[in-house]
Amino acid sequence: MTTHHDNWILAAQCPSKIGTVDVVTRFLREENCYITELNSFDDREGQGFVIRVEFRPEGAFDSASFVSRFGDRAQPFDMAFELTAPGTRMPVVIMVSKSDHCLNDLLYRYRIGQLPIDIKAIVSNHPDLEPLAAWHKLPYHHLPITPTTKAEQEAQVWSIIQQTGAELVILARYMQVLSADMCSKLSGRAINIHHSLLPGFKGAKPYHQAYDKGVKLVGATAHYINNDLDEGPIIAQGVESVDHSHYPEDLVAKGRDIECLTLARAVSYHIERRVFMQGSKTVVFAN
Amino acid sequence: MTTHHDNWILAAQCPSKIGTVDVVTRFLREENCYITELNSFDDREGQGFVIRVEFRPEGAFDSASFVSRFGDRAQPFDMAFELTAPGTRMPVVIMVSKSDHCLNDLLYRYRIGQLPIDIKAIVSNHPDLEPLAAWHKLPYHHLPITPTTKAEQEAQVWSIIQQTGAELVILARYMQVLSADMCSKLSGRAINIHHSLLPGFKGAKPYHQAYDKGVKLVGATAHYINNDLDEGPIIAQGVESVDHSHYPEDLVAKGRDIECLTLARAVSYHIERRVFMQGSKTVVFAN
Amino acid sequence: MTTHHDNWILAAQCPSKIGTVDVVTRFLREENCYITELNSFDDREGQGFVIRVEFRPEGAFDSASFVSRFGDRAQPFDMAFELTAPGTRMPVVIMVSKSDHCLNDLLYRYRIGQLPIDIKAIVSNHPDLEPLAAWHKLPYHHLPITPTTKAEQEAQVWSIIQQTGAELVILARYMQVLSADMCSKLSGRAINIHHSLLPGFKGAKPYHQAYDKGVKLVGATAHYINNDLDEGPIIAQGVESVDHSHYPEDLVAKGRDIECLTLARAVSYHIERRVFMQGSKTVVFAN
Amino acid sequence: MTTHHDNWILAAQCPSKIGTVDVVTRFLREENCYITELNSFDDREGQGFVIRVEFRPEGAFDSASFVSRFGDRAQPFDMAFELTAPGTRMPVVIMVSKSDHCLNDLLYRYRIGQLPIDIKAIVSNHPDLEPLAAWHKLPYHHLPITPTTKAEQEAQVWSIIQQTGAELVILARYMQVLSADMCSKLSGRAINIHHSLLPGFKGAKPYHQAYDKGVKLVGATAHYINNDLDEGPIIAQGVESVDHSHYPEDLVAKGRDIECLTLARAVSYHIERRVFMQGSKTVVFAN
Repeated sequence: MTTHHDNWILAAQCPSKIGTVDVVTRFLREENCYITELNSFDDREGQGFVIRVEFRPEGAFDSASFVSRFGDRAQPFDMAFELTAPGTRMPVVIMVSKSDHCLNDLLYRYRIGQLPIDIKAIVSNHPDLEPLAAWHKLPYHHLPITPTTKAEQEAQVWSIIQQTGAELVILARYMQVLSADMCSKLSGRAINIHHSLLPGFKGAKPYHQAYDKGVKLVGATAHYINNDLDEGPIIAQGVESVDHSHYPEDLVAKGRDIECLTLARAVSYHIERRVFMQGSKTVVFAN
Repeated sequence: MTTHHDNWILAAQCPSKIGTVDVVTRFLREENCYITELNSFDDREGQGFVIRVEFRPEGAFDSASFVSRFGDRAQPFDMAFELTAPGTRMPVVIMVSKSDHCLNDLLYRYRIGQLPIDIKAIVSNHPDLEPLAAWHKLPYHHLPITPTTKAEQEAQVWSIIQQTGAELVILARYMQVLSADMCSKLSGRAINIHHSLLPGFKGAKPYHQAYDKGVKLVGATAHYINNDLDEGPIIAQGVESVDHSHYPEDLVAKGRDIECLTLARAVSYHIERRVFMQGSKTVVFAN
Repeated sequence: MTTHHDNWILAAQCPSKIGTVDVVTRFLREENCYITELNSFDDREGQGFVIRVEFRPEGAFDSASFVSRFGDRAQPFDMAFELTAPGTRMPVVIMVSKSDHCLNDLLYRYRIGQLPIDIKAIVSNHPDLEPLAAWHKLPYHHLPITPTTKAEQEAQVWSIIQQTGAELVILARYMQVLSADMCSKLSGRAINIHHSLLPGFKGAKPYHQAYDKGVKLVGATAHYINNDLDEGPIIAQGVESVDHSHYPEDLVAKGRDIECLTLARAVSYHIERRVFMQGSKTVVFAN
Repeated sequence: MTTHHDNWILAAQCPSKIGTVDVVTRFLREENCYITELNSFDDREGQGFVIRVEFRPEGAFDSASFVSRFGDRAQPFDMAFELTAPGTRMPVVIMVSKSDHCLNDLLYRYRIGQLPIDIKAIVSNHPDLEPLAAWHKLPYHHLPITPTTKAEQEAQVWSIIQQTGAELVILARYMQVLSADMCSKLSGRAINIHHSLLPGFKGAKPYHQAYDKGVKLVGATAHYINNDLDEGPIIAQGVESVDHSHYPEDLVAKGRDIECLTLARAVSYHIERRVFMQGSKTVVFAN
């Protein structure tokens, strides 16, 4: 379910060590915070500890003070944490090319308030989707890209991300390969949708590859960008049945629905602080 | 998969009788029509025979003549049939109230050409969704309804359906109960989306009913209107997992995705002549 | 995932009150217990608080002492709790009639060690499944039932449950309606599999009902027995697609797979202490 | 649905050519055979035509004569065909190693009559599953294999297949790689279950590979053997959700259910003549 409106979220992560849960829950108790949901996980293979708590303060609540004082407790655990206020809308940049199914889906969820994001900009290497952005009264940056201007274009993109204070970049079927430098800058804060179940069909035209193999299922994978565009930690995956009568263009059509749903789910999880990166994998407290 | 662009579709239905397949296939052979897909079903419980053929003429093709001459063959079988040309766009009226998730989804599929429909009008008992219609350059009729004006409003709706030549009415979360008369007029040519797995949770607020029961799955049902709004033959159903953390408003949000997908699938099947009504049930040659 | 072998489980439940998490986690910290997974949920509608913790003691661990001392802490919260040792096999009685698909499935999972249960007895009102029990070297009690001997038969069943110390009764397609008295005795400790998505198709022959409605999905529901056999809190539900070509006997066949999987999943959740009853619903920390 | 008991099945396949449907349906009409279901597909990419018909003769029916006379009609189309009588039980050999989840599942379906096969032998390179075979009163051949005896062992296996007249070999988690020669002999008449969604995770320990990638879905693939054990035409695929808490052994456990269901579905499709090989792919008239 979506995070409920009067709930704060505390999400934290650190190396495994006895007391990691207690340091969080004891502090919340002392602060008179009522925990409505808590999930923690400690990876037995050494990837560390993560915890997500939804709570509501029973009395007055000073978040700056909370952060400062909890920071003192968290420090001996090398615990990174983030406190999210109820009603927070994460600043976001969306990147697209020509296909607009994921964009249309995200904008719909945004428009009806289902996805609590604050869309700062839509960036594209093509002008095609400007009208859709305009109808939603959202700024649209057409930043074309050519082999020789890639570095320059990425610098422009990066500048927009910086200036808008975007905390998340959504690659909603942005069909350009990001440079290693850009991937690195966006590591863990950019979500990509890949139109296949990785690692099955990496590379170009995965639906054609799937068709050639005669698969009976097609899927989509939403993952974080890390230094390899198609290889970052997986957040969500979706799948749908197909049969022999689905030619590549039919798989593409089928794929659109899965891509929309899978990307939207991954973004929701991220926004609600349900996702933690642990090495090359994620912990997702899904629902 | 979607029907392929150069294919004609012949859909036919009649009482069970030996020779029902042969009368169709022999004629197509004589007409030099190449069959790419054929599905037939004969209900053992006496509900009759249905057949759907996709074919392409090998040579010149005069559809009027085809219909006339096949009509002679079909007549002894009391066979009703319909021939659909490649590229046909079915004239459609969409009815909505205030919720726009299904409308937004249908309009998107319409806009990118995935759903070969010709939207003649959007009719609503509320003004709210007019901007969405306007952006798609589609006529929007705001026909408010009150207990005393229901008959009059339905007459206006019916008039629009008649005047536009709509062959299908899509009730995309139209929250008014149609009169028995209107249901009867629209029998088999109007598709409704009900936000539950009928007959589990009929009536109002099915998601609240589902919540009260603590269900672990929520669903949606797309069905034809017949004389009972929530009881017509089922075309498609969808389902999604939920858990204890989903309060009614979360079920509503989850439900939106299933409703969109299930309604769109049902409309696609109808448009592609994959659906046949047999008594209180349907035969659907899905894919 | 299944609970890992070196982990203890503490499951607890109480009315909502500030400090419910802390009283658990602080004690575990003091006892030098390492928490590997924790899930808690507090129902906003007043159904109370539940928590499940997987942990491993870092040093020596005396469970009797743990229980006694934690009991003192839990008492002010009216907190009921249960501590489960690694490797615990829950004593179970399985009740069947003539259909053996669920029994066969459960026995397989039992045999390969996937389901950590200790099957004390298989009870049936028919002799048919005795050979299957015998092959697994399990005691089989044939307790026939007639209208006039129902009370007596239930007394025999109850006696077996008592004598074997069974903590869970699995109704693996036991086709007799239990008396209100028996339901009451088994409340919360007996799991039934109902071959439909309740409350859609209650009563007899749900697959025939589903067929008559022309449904496109069939399902199964595993739930606790309470005072109404088909109405207890739902633990798990499963669903599968069907089409017009599925006559009632085909739905029955399709249903077998869903029933097996849904019942097995519910039993696993129960065994791993993932399920909590809250009024007429359950909280399930599934995975 | 399963093929109904009084129905014959005619399955045929040939290069694309006008008249392929008509040659079948006209003959059936002439023979006074009542068609209850028909599905045909003609691949636009040049892989040819397939058709499957379920029918019941209205009068006397001489199958030998039917085959002979239809053969004359089919010959100009280079049409291969197969006629299957109602109640036919396909002779089968099942090959296993030590894991018995698929075997147990197949034997259950066999035992209750859901899978109309005639199990001629169970062959294994290990003795472990002999008791399970014995309980079902089925011959079990323990044919151990070592690097030096592989050719010899395969010769023994082949001899059993030949002598029993097995038309289908089911590799129900047989953990030996078949030689190219054996693959070739079994091409199109042996079904293998691979415990992953190929081509994602080929090779050894696919669940460990999946774990390392942090996938959120695991799957299984049932396919025909051709000259490459893990690469033959796919018949069916299944998938299930997993999360971060699933360590490799948990994925293995989850995988068992999918493997059983996917293999059983593929075998059913094959037995009911719903599957046709077209090059490296299959046409499956599933249900």
